Amino acid sequence: MAGLQPVEAVLVIFGGTGDLTSRKLIPALHNLKAKDSLPQHFAVIGVGRRQLSDQEFRKNLYPALRQAVGENLRADTWAELQERIFYRRFDFQDERGYRVLREFLEQTDAAYQTGGNRIYYLAVAPEYFGVIVEKLYANGLVRNRSGQGWQRVVIEKPFGRDLATARVLNRKITAVFSEKNTFRIDHYLGKEMIQNIMVLRFANPLFEAVWNNKYVDNVQISATETVGVENRAGYYEQAGALRDMLQNHLLQLLTLTGMEPPVSLTTEAVRDEKVKVLRSLRALAPERVAGDVVRGQYGPGRIEGGQVAAYREEKGISPSSDTETFLALKVEIDNFRWAGVPFYIRTGKRLRAKSTDVIVQFKALPPILYVKEHGELEPNILIIRIQPKEGVYFQFNAKKPGMDPSISPVKMDFCQNCDFENNSPEAYEKLLLDVMRGDPTLFTRWDEVEYSWKFVDQIAQTWGEDQRISSPVPYPAGTWGPAAAGELLARDGRAWWSPGG
Amino acid sequence: MAGLQPVEAVLVIFGGTGDLTSRKLIPALHNLKAKDSLPQHFAVIGVGRRQLSDQEFRKNLYPALRQAVGENLRADTWAELQERIFYRRFDFQDERGYRVLREFLEQTDAAYQTGGNRIYYLAVAPEYFGVIVEKLYANGLVRNRSGQGWQRVVIEKPFGRDLATARVLNRKITAVFSEKNTFRIDHYLGKEMIQNIMVLRFANPLFEAVWNNKYVDNVQISATETVGVENRAGYYEQAGALRDMLQNHLLQLLTLTGMEPPVSLTTEAVRDEKVKVLRSLRALAPERVAGDVVRGQYGPGRIEGGQVAAYREEKGISPSSDTETFLALKVEIDNFRWAGVPFYIRTGKRLRAKSTDVIVQFKALPPILYVKEHGELEPNILIIRIQPKEGVYFQFNAKKPGMDPSISPVKMDFCQNCDFENNSPEAYEKLLLDVMRGDPTLFTRWDEVEYSWKFVDQIAQTWGEDQRISSPVPYPAGTWGPAAAGELLARDGRAWWSPGG
Repeated sequence: MAGLQPVEAVLVIFGGTGDLTSRKLIPALHNLKAKDSLPQHFAVIGVGRRQLSDQEFRKNLYPALRQAVGENLRADTWAELQERIFYRRFDFQDERGYRVLREFLEQTDAAYQTGGNRIYYLAVAPEYFGVIVEKLYANGLVRNRSGQGWQRVVIEKPFGRDLATARVLNRKITAVFSEKNTFRIDHYLGKEMIQNIMVLRFANPLFEAVWNNKYVDNVQISATETVGVENRAGYYEQAGALRDMLQNHLLQLLTLTGMEPPVSLTTEAVRDEKVKVLRSLRALAPERVAGDVVRGQYGPGRIEGGQVAAYREEKGISPSSDTETFLALKVEIDNFRWAGVPFYIRTGKRLRAKSTDVIVQFKALPPILYVKEHGELEPNILIIRIQPKEGVYFQFNAKKPGMDPSISPVKMDFCQNCDFENNSPEAYEKLLLDVMRGDPTLFTRWDEVEYSWKFVDQIAQTWGEDQRISSPVPYPAGTWGPAAAGELLARDGRAWWSPGG
Repeated sequence: MAGLQPVEAVLVIFGGTGDLTSRKLIPALHNLKAKDSLPQHFAVIGVGRRQLSDQEFRKNLYPALRQAVGENLRADTWAELQERIFYRRFDFQDERGYRVLREFLEQTDAAYQTGGNRIYYLAVAPEYFGVIVEKLYANGLVRNRSGQGWQRVVIEKPFGRDLATARVLNRKITAVFSEKNTFRIDHYLGKEMIQNIMVLRFANPLFEAVWNNKYVDNVQISATETVGVENRAGYYEQAGALRDMLQNHLLQLLTLTGMEPPVSLTTEAVRDEKVKVLRSLRALAPERVAGDVVRGQYGPGRIEGGQVAAYREEKGISPSSDTETFLALKVEIDNFRWAGVPFYIRTGKRLRAKSTDVIVQFKALPPILYVKEHGELEPNILIIRIQPKEGVYFQFNAKKPGMDPSISPVKMDFCQNCDFENNSPEAYEKLLLDVMRGDPTLFTRWDEVEYSWKFVDQIAQTWGEDQRISSPVPYPAGTWGPAAAGELLARDGRAWWSPGG
């Protein structure tokens, strides 16, 4: 889909006064504009419940923009961009508001030559997703009167809170928007190195040659954070690590790492292969959930030298909360490529370091030649570093320089964003552009959502039913999570590869 | 052979006043001594035809030592070492000299407790190799009267000038020294990264997995120099690139790169596999020599900004010399691992850059997916850098950061001797130590010499007989050699990988 150009459109952001708008969407638009990547005919309408003038709205966006963009902020770019940013106040339940918005969109079309093309970006609490979509339709905001242009919807996570609610939501959306106009956003997919996984695998014969159970011992997908719940208590209490990270981001990483080569690079061919991975995941029967899934919640501890509170002490969190802030599990992909190769997944808040990585650990050498002489050697390791560093790390064995015949691992580190500051665009830049271009490759198709909920529901249901594991295991903030996460690998004779060694 | 310790010995250097002694052997001994790696009981006797006192000999060694060792020169080390360095003058043809040397060795044994252990290092013109060995024996310097200790001989290149003369020489040596006490030195084998080839291959499942004709497109073994013939005219006129580089260093690199995994890391098991590669080399019938071997001689040109003379204008070189200073050839190893994978070998003087590398170029991607979208991509390349840089270079494809979906090669460069100065010991340190330890792994066994001469003789004979190729092709100094060397690969749809890209 390389040839697609972004075309004229009005971006309507529901939840215009929220954090996502000011911290991610507006900075992304600024950066796109600075690179001259926005369409010439373009406008933004923020919609929210607060009473603000256009001027006040623009002014309110500025501090977060400045913080996000830093020294790359360009005054002229922002001046031009903010001229095209408007605000309309209304309650998402209120029919009248939609009619007013429709009128305003038609004026905007006329003023900015946006030809009826609309992007409805739902940056709101998930309970409003269905309502907004239905009312957009009911008030003529989807199939507009002129019959011109296209209308697309962008839906932020969480897409449901289990398979049943996701299905209900999806039915509401598909009643109004076709699959091709539905953009289920997973901002992880906009990250440079995640887009790079397929390139690394399929543009390098050397990696493709060994990307299977003949050479790979195990794969670790690890997304660790040092932050706690921050100001997302309401959402996080409902989601936990399971729904906040596993169902979307981590299973997406798993599919990209594990998928078969697609027939072509078209959106549908790639999604077909991703879905096949999800469909090949070994079922997690209750006994396996008890054994192969570790659930944790952070207690008090020290992070980067400072004392931090326990999850249950955080603002807005129940003192008896059983929401997990940590999750580790072992996943098996039952196909010819991966049979016998465990995929270990780990994510958590308030851990020792912030890092998202896909770690491919290759099989150990047979006990001959150098292993016979020197004892066990370090395995070959390939790490795709996703954030905060973006790059590729490769570790292999070489002779130590000198008379001494010993062997030690050599580390090759290619860091994409280390030398050039702000080399990589922010995920939202890429994704917003893709919505304008109509390229859904980096968004999630319904069946991907469906199969990941099916997988995740097995865990949630067992947790709900199984007394042994109804509460998460506490772990001190600033550690690598509960000891059980280490044991999960140790019992297989393995260990987590921790960022930095 | 890791456990062997160097034991007490007297090192007798025939050719003590020559360049090799002052530029390589004495600096190596200094460095070993500085690291406390020399045996406690140790002495050196230089033998030559010039009339010098011990004091004069020591003094004469100093300037070259200082130049070689630079700031690592340690005055106390040299003071201790030179106390143990002696000089004896005699003509290598003169029986009396050997008898005097024998007396002196016996005194030295008594003085330095060297127990009859002797290393006879033949750093002389090759015509003396046979004579010296015979006279050592005839005068009781090999099986010494006390019957104590061991006696080893170290022979510098060239070992013969063809198979016939090598056999004659070998017969003379083996009449006196057993194979296990015969150390045919190839100083390339002492280089760090050459010792590393086996480790890289056999201590890394990832490399071993792809080290065959299923994944490798071609291998290039390239040893290029910027220097001309220097002060070695007499020797080089006889040898040329064929005998000076191919017969020994480059075929050794070829065997290490191409060999099957040995049964064990013992000397004999490794040598067995190296010989198998030489025995699997496809014969070079005269027609193939005409087509697959390029012979060149440098003309005048510019190197690093300065004008340099043609080979035929160099001091000591015949103005009508037909000695080749450049050689490129295509070699096929006829075994299951390498069938269909050409090994291209190149060496030359007065070329654009100094570099010795083993370049493994992996097969191109099939014309699907990214290649279909973006056109041909750079191949995966693994380079073992031998000198002057020591390290490993790996090139693979990754997505270019940014919105642009283009793919570009990423270069990972592990340079072993870039960060730490003088990290790697000089080849001669390692090799002298191995002689003292009695470890012949990095030396050449007779059958290796024999099979490499067999291979090289095919070329020399065709050159001698075939009028079409009796003269080398001239090439301007400072280039990559004759155009025909490029055509050798171009006709296979390939190109030389040049140092620096």
